[in-house]
Amino acid sequence: MDTDDIIGEILDKIRPTEEERAFVESLMMELKAIAEETIESLGLDVKPHFVGSLAKDTYLAGDHDVDLFLTFPLDTPLEKLREKGLELGKAIAERLDLYEIAYAEHPYVRARYRGVKVDLVPCYDVKSWRDVRTAVDRSILHNRWVLENLGGRNDEVRLLKRFLKGIRAYGSEIYIRGFSGYFAEILVIKYGSFLEVLKNADFMLRQKIIDPGNWLKREYELAMKTVRREAEADKPLIVIDPVDPRRNVAANLGWEKYGRFYFKAYQFLESPGEEFFFPKGQEVEDYLAELRKKGTHLVTLAFDAPNLVEDVLLPQLERSARGFEKALSREGFNVLGWNVGRSSGKAFIMLEVDRRERERVKIKPGPEFFTERGWDFYRKNERVWIRGKRLFAEKRVKENVIDVITELIEKNQVGLGKGIREAIKGADVLLNYVPKELEDEAYLFLSREKWNLKG
Amino acid sequence: MDTDDIIGEILDKIRPTEEERAFVESLMMELKAIAEETIESLGLDVKPHFVGSLAKDTYLAGDHDVDLFLTFPLDTPLEKLREKGLELGKAIAERLDLYEIAYAEHPYVRARYRGVKVDLVPCYDVKSWRDVRTAVDRSILHNRWVLENLGGRNDEVRLLKRFLKGIRAYGSEIYIRGFSGYFAEILVIKYGSFLEVLKNADFMLRQKIIDPGNWLKREYELAMKTVRREAEADKPLIVIDPVDPRRNVAANLGWEKYGRFYFKAYQFLESPGEEFFFPKGQEVEDYLAELRKKGTHLVTLAFDAPNLVEDVLLPQLERSARGFEKALSREGFNVLGWNVGRSSGKAFIMLEVDRRERERVKIKPGPEFFTERGWDFYRKNERVWIRGKRLFAEKRVKENVIDVITELIEKNQVGLGKGIREAIKGADVLLNYVPKELEDEAYLFLSREKWNLKG
Repeated sequence: MDTDDIIGEILDKIRPTEEERAFVESLMMELKAIAEETIESLGLDVKPHFVGSLAKDTYLAGDHDVDLFLTFPLDTPLEKLREKGLELGKAIAERLDLYEIAYAEHPYVRARYRGVKVDLVPCYDVKSWRDVRTAVDRSILHNRWVLENLGGRNDEVRLLKRFLKGIRAYGSEIYIRGFSGYFAEILVIKYGSFLEVLKNADFMLRQKIIDPGNWLKREYELAMKTVRREAEADKPLIVIDPVDPRRNVAANLGWEKYGRFYFKAYQFLESPGEEFFFPKGQEVEDYLAELRKKGTHLVTLAFDAPNLVEDVLLPQLERSARGFEKALSREGFNVLGWNVGRSSGKAFIMLEVDRRERERVKIKPGPEFFTERGWDFYRKNERVWIRGKRLFAEKRVKENVIDVITELIEKNQVGLGKGIREAIKGADVLLNYVPKELEDEAYLFLSREKWNLKG
Repeated sequence: MDTDDIIGEILDKIRPTEEERAFVESLMMELKAIAEETIESLGLDVKPHFVGSLAKDTYLAGDHDVDLFLTFPLDTPLEKLREKGLELGKAIAERLDLYEIAYAEHPYVRARYRGVKVDLVPCYDVKSWRDVRTAVDRSILHNRWVLENLGGRNDEVRLLKRFLKGIRAYGSEIYIRGFSGYFAEILVIKYGSFLEVLKNADFMLRQKIIDPGNWLKREYELAMKTVRREAEADKPLIVIDPVDPRRNVAANLGWEKYGRFYFKAYQFLESPGEEFFFPKGQEVEDYLAELRKKGTHLVTLAFDAPNLVEDVLLPQLERSARGFEKALSREGFNVLGWNVGRSSGKAFIMLEVDRRERERVKIKPGPEFFTERGWDFYRKNERVWIRGKRLFAEKRVKENVIDVITELIEKNQVGLGKGIREAIKGADVLLNYVPKELEDEAYLFLSREKWNLKG
């Protein structure tokens, strides 16, 4: 199949059907009506705004999360916005199916309606970046900018988003560090199509700066400040937000995820295939067989995940993994790689080490034999001998990597993430064995298929 | 038992009985008669001289090796001395029980007579060190000096020699680096008795120079030249030969053997016992159990010992062992110790290593992914991933210590002793297994009982 055929097939899968569109539209109309009625009944000066991929018509078939923003006038005090916003959200949600309170910069209501997740987020009704007061305010500006500039290339955005999901580079959360939906839209607007975006993977990295809003002409000082700040932080790309010159749209994009995009774009152009968009489930084999093949050993620390959101937990786990890597290498174990995550309530840190035991004796060189210190050494040690003029003795050392880790933790000799230090102290430390639910994870890590660019 | 009792008991064992003395005397008289008759029958101008411990009456009971030196006039050309000396030796030996030719600086005859080994060594009839022309000439001077100075302290010499044998510090051969018999005699003459020698173990090391011949007064320049030369070579002691100011009697004494003497002297004075003179056979246990206990591994190279004398072979083996130690540490194996030797025709090098296998994969860091070299790296490797901006890949490496050693030898990447390089190439390389005849050696090495000062 050539590229066009493949793209055609993919579009058939990811473009919403007429039926689906009708459902989404009726859903939004109903939600809007409910919101407006509730606002009126509460006597509030608030307008409902749909944002996100549903509002921009860039959503993928079957992916119907609704972002309903409740915009308050700019002169509303922040405290009042928080309070009334949550009150309004709850009041709307009462008329939907079920809801809970979620916490970001402000608390907001996360409800479900007709099988769809609906976020009810209070914000300010901003007209320009100068009005932006809370983290979510910008979304309304983003929404408008995309609608004004996309020019019917919605399916190109769908293709790019699906491609990024397929290659596991989608999502701008801090623990993912991939591409956001908004960034995908900007790329399509900038380069014209899905394929052109792929073809520019190398070029855009060399250009470094993408400035679709022309801020470097319109607000040179501010835009340059952004460029300098982000360049200093060594971000792979600096995409000056077309709605706000102070912001890098790609601020959360990491080199690793950009690298995946870079190589996968090349691979797709060389040899296109549906599997880039819909990868077959990675073939998982037996992690124990992989261990045997590699001749290495797997240490897993598993513990009850403290009640932290992913953005906080994951970096803490990574930090702790690096702490173990460092501490173990001081102790004579070579850490070939590490992997962290959370799986059904359990947080884990996996360390691949080169051996399970280190030698139980070490040769301890002593001083010259005919000195005061020589006599001390002679008295203190059991097996003592001379090589040249110096005394030597054998010293027994800790043996098993598990014992070493346990002792390191006990003695606080590992740099651990703050929020999880105590949890790690109570961790199960497992050697060459993982609980059932971590078996796949262990295989994908040990085989490096988790990250393999050629996988 | 107190020290005197112990010394008494030991003397009963090592002092020759009247019967034994009578045997030795008759043996020497017979040999002298045979030598003189042979010399006369050949019409040579040669005199027979007994040297060594038998001639000095410092031999240990049961230890009857005879050194019969055949002294030629000083004006004999060296070639003639070699030729006639060997001829005469053979002629004498024809009248003894059996003989063979041995090789030192000159060939000489090694015979047996009445169950005793008899060396027939041609040399010059020197009167002073200025006449010395071959390595053995000095023996006649040594003999005379000891007889003139010992003053009846022969048993003290016997005690010291037996003590040095007992603690495995006796023998000045280059591969032993211990004390010679002559040196033991000098020490007794210098310090007066066996016990005084022990008491001065620390003092003499600090004094550094022993000059029983007063050469620093009589031949200052020459003696100082010896002192400077030996000090520069960092010898533990400089004992200016009382019969030759150019020579350090302790030139072949190593720090290790002096160290053994140093600590054993201290131990004996603290807590005397017969076992210093007659150690119980070292208790040998199972070397495999020792390996398990230590958690280390034993690599043994065993090969047909090339036809070299110990003085040449042993240093070559040591050099090769050091070569393996260095090469293996470059390869990620830690060598905790080594041991070399020869046992029933087989030469061996034992290496105690910390592990039997190193990891079979190594993480290979590559260049930044968006560079030319990055693309090369991406193409060349199978499992490739990104950390930060850099590519990484797994690299398979050689595994087993035996394979690593085999490859190191094949690729000439080990510094090996010249004379045994080829033999080592054909060596059996054994892991955690040694042939039956090396089992004790393996245990004594691994347990360090071979060298343990407290053993």
